[in-house]
Amino acid sequence: MTNEQTAHTEEQVAAIAPTHHRLRVGITHGDINGVGYELIFRTFAAPEMADLCTPIVFGSAKVAHYHRKALGLDTPFQVVATAADALEGQLNLIDCATDDVSVQFGQCSAEAGHMAYVALEAATEALKAGDIDVLVTAPICKSAIQSADFRFVGHTEYLADRLAPDSQPLMMLCNAQLRVALVTTHLPLRDVPAAITTESVEQHIRQVYHSLRHDFLVPAPRIAVLGLNPHNGDNGTLGSEEADIIRPAIQAAVEDGIQCFGPYPADGFFGAGLYGEFDAVLAMYHDQALAPFKALSMDDGVNFTAGLPYVRTSPDHGTAFDIAGRGIASEASFRRAIYDAIDICRNRRADDDARRNPLPKLYHERREDGLRVQRQPLPPLS
Amino acid sequence: MTNEQTAHTEEQVAAIAPTHHRLRVGITHGDINGVGYELIFRTFAAPEMADLCTPIVFGSAKVAHYHRKALGLDTPFQVVATAADALEGQLNLIDCATDDVSVQFGQCSAEAGHMAYVALEAATEALKAGDIDVLVTAPICKSAIQSADFRFVGHTEYLADRLAPDSQPLMMLCNAQLRVALVTTHLPLRDVPAAITTESVEQHIRQVYHSLRHDFLVPAPRIAVLGLNPHNGDNGTLGSEEADIIRPAIQAAVEDGIQCFGPYPADGFFGAGLYGEFDAVLAMYHDQALAPFKALSMDDGVNFTAGLPYVRTSPDHGTAFDIAGRGIASEASFRRAIYDAIDICRNRRADDDARRNPLPKLYHERREDGLRVQRQPLPPLS
Repeated sequence: MTNEQTAHTEEQVAAIAPTHHRLRVGITHGDINGVGYELIFRTFAAPEMADLCTPIVFGSAKVAHYHRKALGLDTPFQVVATAADALEGQLNLIDCATDDVSVQFGQCSAEAGHMAYVALEAATEALKAGDIDVLVTAPICKSAIQSADFRFVGHTEYLADRLAPDSQPLMMLCNAQLRVALVTTHLPLRDVPAAITTESVEQHIRQVYHSLRHDFLVPAPRIAVLGLNPHNGDNGTLGSEEADIIRPAIQAAVEDGIQCFGPYPADGFFGAGLYGEFDAVLAMYHDQALAPFKALSMDDGVNFTAGLPYVRTSPDHGTAFDIAGRGIASEASFRRAIYDAIDICRNRRADDDARRNPLPKLYHERREDGLRVQRQPLPPLS
Repeated sequence: MTNEQTAHTEEQVAAIAPTHHRLRVGITHGDINGVGYELIFRTFAAPEMADLCTPIVFGSAKVAHYHRKALGLDTPFQVVATAADALEGQLNLIDCATDDVSVQFGQCSAEAGHMAYVALEAATEALKAGDIDVLVTAPICKSAIQSADFRFVGHTEYLADRLAPDSQPLMMLCNAQLRVALVTTHLPLRDVPAAITTESVEQHIRQVYHSLRHDFLVPAPRIAVLGLNPHNGDNGTLGSEEADIIRPAIQAAVEDGIQCFGPYPADGFFGAGLYGEFDAVLAMYHDQALAPFKALSMDDGVNFTAGLPYVRTSPDHGTAFDIAGRGIASEASFRRAIYDAIDICRNRRADDDARRNPLPKLYHERREDGLRVQRQPLPPLS
């Protein structure tokens, strides 16, 4: 073994070091008529949160003051010009959304939508430039934010377009008990069956696999795949997509060494708590994943966009217009979105570092997953 | 007020009396390779269960003995020739499935399916003849039971055909927290959107309303209706069925005095626990209802077939072939199915009795629901 292999290079030290330092967490303020600022102020009311990371809000100082006063919260914040100026141990705010808009709690308006857009755009640029390490987005009103500049069904699609146009972002919901990823996301129900193809299911299984290893450091992930039809199609009497499309996709993934199981009927799967036996579940469409996920989440659901070269999370709820300005919003999901963003960023860096300089193989690789996983370093991700 | 109005007629006494007597609960043994007998024996191991009702199993004495021995259970049972011979305080069994079939735990076989069918047929006849008061069905294997005699996707459709061919059965799932009814049940996902029409949604709202009043004695039910698409179609960008189809159906019901709300996006509805504010939820399709319902049910989900002139319930799980014969099945859902069948039967009789001889109206009915509900006897169900 040569010296180069044992000593830490400068690059390696740089890759390890950030796990011991505060990450710079960029936070968008979301829709200014919603609960965004309430979530932010409640989360950083606990001083220990600023020990965990350096939070940098992309928003409006005026609106932030208004919310703080209206809600009777006293979390202090510091206006800074750029992310580079952010102070450790403080809640920092970059005053980038400077339109003169008055807050109207609970209202869906184009002005508020524009404020959300401007902050998102600035945060995205900062993420791209490396000025922030991760991005956590407060909820937007999807119809308010639409404009000539923003024609996307949500954050996920916008970020993919801006950050990595060739990537395939993967929507993944995480809580303390389970992770659910989706093959189709924001599609009318009538368009779902046509979008379920062997290629799309197989590609999503692979994405889930890579995300579990790289983002969550699960060495040999077990993945469950749900069916499309009630009772998995009941042997073809209630639809044949399970046999014709989903099973072949699972088979292809299994042949490639991925521990992938199913398809499972969605109701029985969630009813029997089978998710406890897997590292992630791949659902076919939005409500199949999100209705049971949110039913099971006690305020702690996080939406993570896997498949991007940058880390972005958000709470799993919306603007909560019905309770905006009333001071009763729970910040639990938002706080967990921050924890998860930090964890995933550190995991990715640790994983990159671990793979930087692999040991030479000790014996010829056999096509037996158990052996390979236990005795050899993980092969680099393709 | 005449004498006829105050004195109880013989018919009225007969209608009240059964609520104070044990109801005869017919029970089918379901698939003999599944957990049916285990559920039955576990449930009636508690002697107080036979104080609550007179259970009459439609099954096979030989198979029952086999299961009892294999599982090491010692619940005694009594073989009787007909339901009329059933003894109070005992678990009775009518030996109607007499094929010489050996039990093969966990196997899906046509022989076992036929045994399930024969028992179901006998129990259905007994229900029709009034020999039993209610029917509780143990799970069947839907593919095993198919034959020239049985061409149905499940119990619900079979019972509707046999008991009331002109009725529209309504699948309703109940647990301690919520009731969920379905507009479409056993349909391939790709056929769901076409089956969601203003007529079908409105008709199902009315059915839910009548069931809540008649079966559950909720005087002025509040009903929530879910949307079809993700995020309720997000103002038409993810589908237009909410605006074009579901909303008009809700409106029509509201104009008819039904307290009906929605549509709600399924994920947010279950996530925020909004079901706690309604007496029932009407979902558009199978997994939208059953995945979150089962995720929330802790072993206590019951499937109730509303809209039939007879009361039938079942546990919300299947044959559990994977654990059949292992002695680890939970009887909680099956026991609750028995409780619910008894409650619903008594509710129906009490409701019928209450409406038998209404007081004359005291003032001209106004089109104001609150007033009508509080101050007047309920109008008879149409």
